[in-house]
Amino acid sequence: MGWQEYLDREQERFVGELLDFVRIPSVSAKPENIPDVKAAGDWVVERLGAAGIEGAVLLPTDGHPVVCAEWMGAGPDKPTILIYGHFDVQPAEPFELWSSPPFEPEIRDGKVWGRGASDDKGGMLVPIVAVEAMMKSDGRLPVNVRFFFEGQEEIGSPDLPPFVEANVDRLKADMIFSADGLQWAPAQPQIIEALKGLVSLEIVVNGARSDQHSGMHGGGIANPAMALAQILATMKSPDGLITIDGFYDDVIDLTPEAREAIARVPFDEAEYLAETGAPAAVGEPGYSVRERLWARPTLEVNGLTSGWQGAGTKTVLPAEARAKITCRLVADQSPERIFDLISAHVETHCPPGVTVKTERNPGRADPFLVPGGHNASTVAEQVLEEVYGVKPYRTRVGGSIPVMTTLLEHLGVHAVMFGFSHGDENLHAPDEFFRLDTFRRGQVAYCKLLERLGRD
Amino acid sequence: MGWQEYLDREQERFVGELLDFVRIPSVSAKPENIPDVKAAGDWVVERLGAAGIEGAVLLPTDGHPVVCAEWMGAGPDKPTILIYGHFDVQPAEPFELWSSPPFEPEIRDGKVWGRGASDDKGGMLVPIVAVEAMMKSDGRLPVNVRFFFEGQEEIGSPDLPPFVEANVDRLKADMIFSADGLQWAPAQPQIIEALKGLVSLEIVVNGARSDQHSGMHGGGIANPAMALAQILATMKSPDGLITIDGFYDDVIDLTPEAREAIARVPFDEAEYLAETGAPAAVGEPGYSVRERLWARPTLEVNGLTSGWQGAGTKTVLPAEARAKITCRLVADQSPERIFDLISAHVETHCPPGVTVKTERNPGRADPFLVPGGHNASTVAEQVLEEVYGVKPYRTRVGGSIPVMTTLLEHLGVHAVMFGFSHGDENLHAPDEFFRLDTFRRGQVAYCKLLERLGRD
Repeated sequence: MGWQEYLDREQERFVGELLDFVRIPSVSAKPENIPDVKAAGDWVVERLGAAGIEGAVLLPTDGHPVVCAEWMGAGPDKPTILIYGHFDVQPAEPFELWSSPPFEPEIRDGKVWGRGASDDKGGMLVPIVAVEAMMKSDGRLPVNVRFFFEGQEEIGSPDLPPFVEANVDRLKADMIFSADGLQWAPAQPQIIEALKGLVSLEIVVNGARSDQHSGMHGGGIANPAMALAQILATMKSPDGLITIDGFYDDVIDLTPEAREAIARVPFDEAEYLAETGAPAAVGEPGYSVRERLWARPTLEVNGLTSGWQGAGTKTVLPAEARAKITCRLVADQSPERIFDLISAHVETHCPPGVTVKTERNPGRADPFLVPGGHNASTVAEQVLEEVYGVKPYRTRVGGSIPVMTTLLEHLGVHAVMFGFSHGDENLHAPDEFFRLDTFRRGQVAYCKLLERLGRD
Repeated sequence: MGWQEYLDREQERFVGELLDFVRIPSVSAKPENIPDVKAAGDWVVERLGAAGIEGAVLLPTDGHPVVCAEWMGAGPDKPTILIYGHFDVQPAEPFELWSSPPFEPEIRDGKVWGRGASDDKGGMLVPIVAVEAMMKSDGRLPVNVRFFFEGQEEIGSPDLPPFVEANVDRLKADMIFSADGLQWAPAQPQIIEALKGLVSLEIVVNGARSDQHSGMHGGGIANPAMALAQILATMKSPDGLITIDGFYDDVIDLTPEAREAIARVPFDEAEYLAETGAPAAVGEPGYSVRERLWARPTLEVNGLTSGWQGAGTKTVLPAEARAKITCRLVADQSPERIFDLISAHVETHCPPGVTVKTERNPGRADPFLVPGGHNASTVAEQVLEEVYGVKPYRTRVGGSIPVMTTLLEHLGVHAVMFGFSHGDENLHAPDEFFRLDTFRRGQVAYCKLLERLGRD
């Protein structure tokens, strides 16, 4: 019996196991669910054992635990892959908006409904049952496989960097595949080539010691709110070019091939504007909207604060004005260097009569770009095309996934997103669901991935 | 017996009457003090009668009442003057910061301590007792005198414009003197030549329908906070010139004589900066700090609001950004025209991808400039020089006093500030006081003013 038949035969059991897994309310954000996150980890350890992966362990971190496991029986001639996923889930509130209780999963319309069904319990169960099918049918796997499942992804994986650093030997691999990830649509696969990095900062402009009467002092001393506006206006042209000296220096230009790949993904500007309600699409000249969203760095004001913000008039000349800013970065920009450039620009462009400081806010992420011709993504692309019958889109994401950069930093390996959720599955919202046909299709894809990697 | 002797003889009684007047808690801002404001008006009516001015009346408005009175016995050959003041006071909170209870006035160090002692009960009692001294010693006044005392100055005189309009016949005069006003210092008189006008507005920039994720949409659509900054930056140069087309068009340029008068008033820039805590004095090029404060129009951002204003980072692309702005205007700028100019400027300078509207906020004041060579101020200046023994400074005020423009509009007459309070007397603050020697000096000044006006 091959793994295909095994998957067919056992599918009903797998779906039942997914329901069991979803029943554990492993909400990492809530202190009262700490035991449930651990219970979910224990469930994963046991499930890996049942799949034929011996010696899986629940390991402590400074917060929620992680699960590590490996099967190295393919020998040193074969590559070692690391499969990543997470067994914690988002809070389920507001409960009253769910059609069925979030931790009492139901099957309706060929979907499993429940918190975490898609993000990421369904997703991370896919490679486990795929491995089981190969182990039970062949008694072995085509490559060496390591598993790394964590319990704190939904709170930003705060304790992961020190854990990864201290456990490189358990995690070392030639390739990383993330079972936490999206496909473009049920009938359209994608390979995510890049994620943006992040740097967060605040510009603080000060004038007088305290708010002054604008009638008594207007014209005498500078106005920090106006000075802040003047500083901000020097940072971006009205048409969207970031005008900070050196800002684009480290950006890897889009190759013609990369631009083609982006252009191949349908984009309907009218639909995009209808979705956001913005009157027009505006951004860095010379790039398409999608290129800007996916592949160009951005500088966005997240908030402004100064003086009187209540109703009507208060004739104050504010003592202080603040702007919060985040930049999304692309390879090879560094959060630290971009902060330094902005800080120097602000210093240089501060008008007279006020003082200014640029403060860094916590939170950072390096940009992430899978190198062109990267072996793992090429294989993943081939497998997805075979399984879906259409060529995957090559896409990028404007957001940041810090764990990708943590793994890259400590293991020196780019991760390939190889997950089977979809953006419409109410991730982080009420009525989360996971499609049972993609649950099944993902299993086939993981089996084919391992086979193909073992063949090369 | 001349008025001088009468003032000497009765001074103790006048001081006692000031204490009685201060004991009435005529706080116009507080509904529970409505009867007290009326009681203060009644007190004024009675006091005018005791001074020999018959027929004083308390008249209703849509809010607190006013007191009108007149003595027209000097005949049509003599000028008629209108004396203005107010019998309402500011709230006294916080009570615990007062050295003695605000409505139980005390005399200490030659000063009367209590709410309203300086602003404006002491001030408005000055011309009443001056008139009494002349009436009791001469049986008549050198000119025709009208009195107009109101009970809502501290809440912005909301019901005064319709009252003045409907009662022009009671108020008509050749000159107006305001008994609500300041001298520069106990030994240095001043003539206030100008007050600034005011227009208040809000610039509202909108982009997407609601706040968006800055990672998902940054670079795709415009950022209203950045757009607002770009718009504001076009309104003022970094060195303080207002760059709105036509903004300065109606400004009456400072004459060399007016600039000399301003330069004659000592100004210590280091002291000014120490007082405000601002790092430097900055404003419209080509004018001294005091010229800018007193005689040049200003445009000040009073507040900025947009997006995330809490602690740390929230990666939103705000849907809206707002700036509150007030302009202080000088003659002959009009609040309505300046609003229109700004509104047109904002429209023209709005960057792509956002919508903008400029909304007018309630509150307006016309600028007020006593014409050069104005008879009432010339006479007031001569009297002050005679009484103080030094030439008065000619000063201007960055703030606005709407009642001055109301009287000008309906009576066609500029008011001359002829009051005897000082800026250090804790007006609007705990421990308000009024100097007894200036109470006395003011009475002499009013008697001499009437004499001199009767002589011309």
